[in-house]
Amino acid sequence: MSRRAFRPIEGGVCAPVGFRAAGVAAGIKKNGKLDLALVVSERPCAWAGTFTTNAVKAAPVLFNLALPRARPVGGIVANSGNANACTGARGLRDAEQMSARARQIAGKDAAPFLVASTGRIGDLLPMAKIGDGIRAAADRLVREDLACARAIMTTDTFPKRAAAEICVAGRAVRLGGMTKGAGMICPGMSRTGRRPAPHATMLAFLTTDADISSALLQRCLDLAVARSFNRISVDGDMSTNDTVAILANGASGAPALRAGARALADFQEALDDVALRLARMIVKDGEGITKVVTLIVEGAASRADAERAARVIGNSFLVKTSWCGEDPNWGRLFDAAGYSGARVNPANLSARYDGVPLLLRSRVVAANVGRVRAILKKPAFTLRCGLGAGRFSSVFYTTDLTEKTVELNKGE
Amino acid sequence: MSRRAFRPIEGGVCAPVGFRAAGVAAGIKKNGKLDLALVVSERPCAWAGTFTTNAVKAAPVLFNLALPRARPVGGIVANSGNANACTGARGLRDAEQMSARARQIAGKDAAPFLVASTGRIGDLLPMAKIGDGIRAAADRLVREDLACARAIMTTDTFPKRAAAEICVAGRAVRLGGMTKGAGMICPGMSRTGRRPAPHATMLAFLTTDADISSALLQRCLDLAVARSFNRISVDGDMSTNDTVAILANGASGAPALRAGARALADFQEALDDVALRLARMIVKDGEGITKVVTLIVEGAASRADAERAARVIGNSFLVKTSWCGEDPNWGRLFDAAGYSGARVNPANLSARYDGVPLLLRSRVVAANVGRVRAILKKPAFTLRCGLGAGRFSSVFYTTDLTEKTVELNKGE
Repeated sequence: MSRRAFRPIEGGVCAPVGFRAAGVAAGIKKNGKLDLALVVSERPCAWAGTFTTNAVKAAPVLFNLALPRARPVGGIVANSGNANACTGARGLRDAEQMSARARQIAGKDAAPFLVASTGRIGDLLPMAKIGDGIRAAADRLVREDLACARAIMTTDTFPKRAAAEICVAGRAVRLGGMTKGAGMICPGMSRTGRRPAPHATMLAFLTTDADISSALLQRCLDLAVARSFNRISVDGDMSTNDTVAILANGASGAPALRAGARALADFQEALDDVALRLARMIVKDGEGITKVVTLIVEGAASRADAERAARVIGNSFLVKTSWCGEDPNWGRLFDAAGYSGARVNPANLSARYDGVPLLLRSRVVAANVGRVRAILKKPAFTLRCGLGAGRFSSVFYTTDLTEKTVELNKGE
Repeated sequence: MSRRAFRPIEGGVCAPVGFRAAGVAAGIKKNGKLDLALVVSERPCAWAGTFTTNAVKAAPVLFNLALPRARPVGGIVANSGNANACTGARGLRDAEQMSARARQIAGKDAAPFLVASTGRIGDLLPMAKIGDGIRAAADRLVREDLACARAIMTTDTFPKRAAAEICVAGRAVRLGGMTKGAGMICPGMSRTGRRPAPHATMLAFLTTDADISSALLQRCLDLAVARSFNRISVDGDMSTNDTVAILANGASGAPALRAGARALADFQEALDDVALRLARMIVKDGEGITKVVTLIVEGAASRADAERAARVIGNSFLVKTSWCGEDPNWGRLFDAAGYSGARVNPANLSARYDGVPLLLRSRVVAANVGRVRAILKKPAFTLRCGLGAGRFSSVFYTTDLTEKTVELNKGE
């Protein structure tokens, strides 16, 4: 294995220099938990974002999409407990006002703030609470991001942060991030919020002290999201609010990253790592789940086929319930592959659990059934499904589906 | 409402004259229940069929697809307890042999038999038991089809039959059918088993004593399936075995049905009715479900959009669990519509439960929330979702998704 260009470090959005964060309880959630998050950069940031491709987009998503990409932003303000989705013109004004309040408090010359919301669809934001919350958060800004990561949680059971460091021309450059997931998790994002893109609200906010143009940053983010957040699923429902945003403030003092340079490749590698670690935390914290499955489809006739089959198998109700039952039901895997639209060679299917073949050339390896049963009892395993139709492969990160998942989503 | 051209009658595949049926316990199911079904016509039948578009097709589906459509068949032999899917060349030989045995027993001049299987994927058929079962069934052929309808059941809790009668030139012409469903229910069939088609094993066998050519019969069946079996879902997984076949033996003595004639329109109406009644029985008997939902998407920009949105909403995990929880969560409906790919006008969404509006022009009708909650407690209701984007509509028949649905599908 080749040496990695980055090293993992502690923390989240405050791991890069020049960022401060806060999380407060503004009373948006009825249970009194943290629900308003603020991330502020000490200097204007280049930014990039990917947004849900859902035709029904929440107001904060529409607000961010309307911001000019080439103009800097000053930070991010987000709330949990209310999605500000399906709230019409009033919702859009509320998102604008939420952004404006955060900008005001950051100083009269501050750049605009990105805005995000997560929670139930269809209710108007309680704007007085939002305003008070932003003020309270501004008073508590620190170079520590745990409270901030907690403030974007909904049904998440743990805060999700990751960070990494690379070296650019002898200087340390850092990348950090936080995310939330738990329900409505099957993101499909693109930079324009338009197709094409495959299918939580999942929110992820990334920061870096690298010096990088917004155009280059968007390219890096697109790649990282395609390899991480757009490859996960818990319940198969794509949200109206999915957002990944990254802010780059250049405060590291390292020279600017340029297209084609080695340093940019290192940055991409670190960004991919942080994004993937965060995405996998979302999967691990899926509502009611008991298994985390790394699903690799191989032997596909094209890359698109591999991705399609992985997505369909990883979202199949009958596949996911069989994992819950720890049942080595390979028939359901290839039933799902068969209706995915991918080319499948029924005479040459294979299935390997943590490297142990259960099916080879479409025949069960009877001697391995016991070992596979033992692997299925583990809380996490890797499943490779071979379609026997070519040489392309794709990975997808998914979960089982349990009675508890249903119970938690029955509502109210 | 216009007068219907048909009248519902009792029974199933033996309601038309000239058909006999039997169901026996051949020992394929371990629990000793009926598992082998035989339908025999007294004279050769024109036939038509639609088959799963899954790329992984079970052996009996491949066998039927290879039969010449213009040549008559003598009947149908089917088993439950084993799907004969993912069984390779041996499975195909077994399907051929199963058909050949039934044909042999029907007499040396008998036409070939259609064949179907349903049950677990991946096991070889126990051919000795199948052979003995066919012999036993042949000895018990009667003009009554209840045992036959029971013999194709898997996790079904009740046998499913329907029949109707029309009048052609003063003579009665009958149509009858039986079906089974319960699990792996999200059929997408076409006459060639190839796309395009939208997405149980669900099996349905229809008979008629009409005199009709196989080409015309196929056209009628395609229309009926598009309006019934291809519009239902329980768990969202399309099976490797889905089959609808119809046999026409002409034994009514009525003149042949011709394209463009009034009698053909009457026949189509009766066929649509029988197919839809059978399809709705499958939905009602979905594994572990507590609600049957008739979902009508309207206000779509095209027919394709209406169908796509209805299919996606009706298969959404979060929508289905909210029905289980009797939660009027309209946000999830339009989240799903939004990621379906259909055009949606977020400013003009509507939702009506049994005619009571919960959402109009994207605003909640607060006064109706209580009434809608009461409707959601019913075992069956109609939900109309308006996308506000045009004038097309589509209906889909679906269910809630419960802890029990998960439990029943965990395996083994």
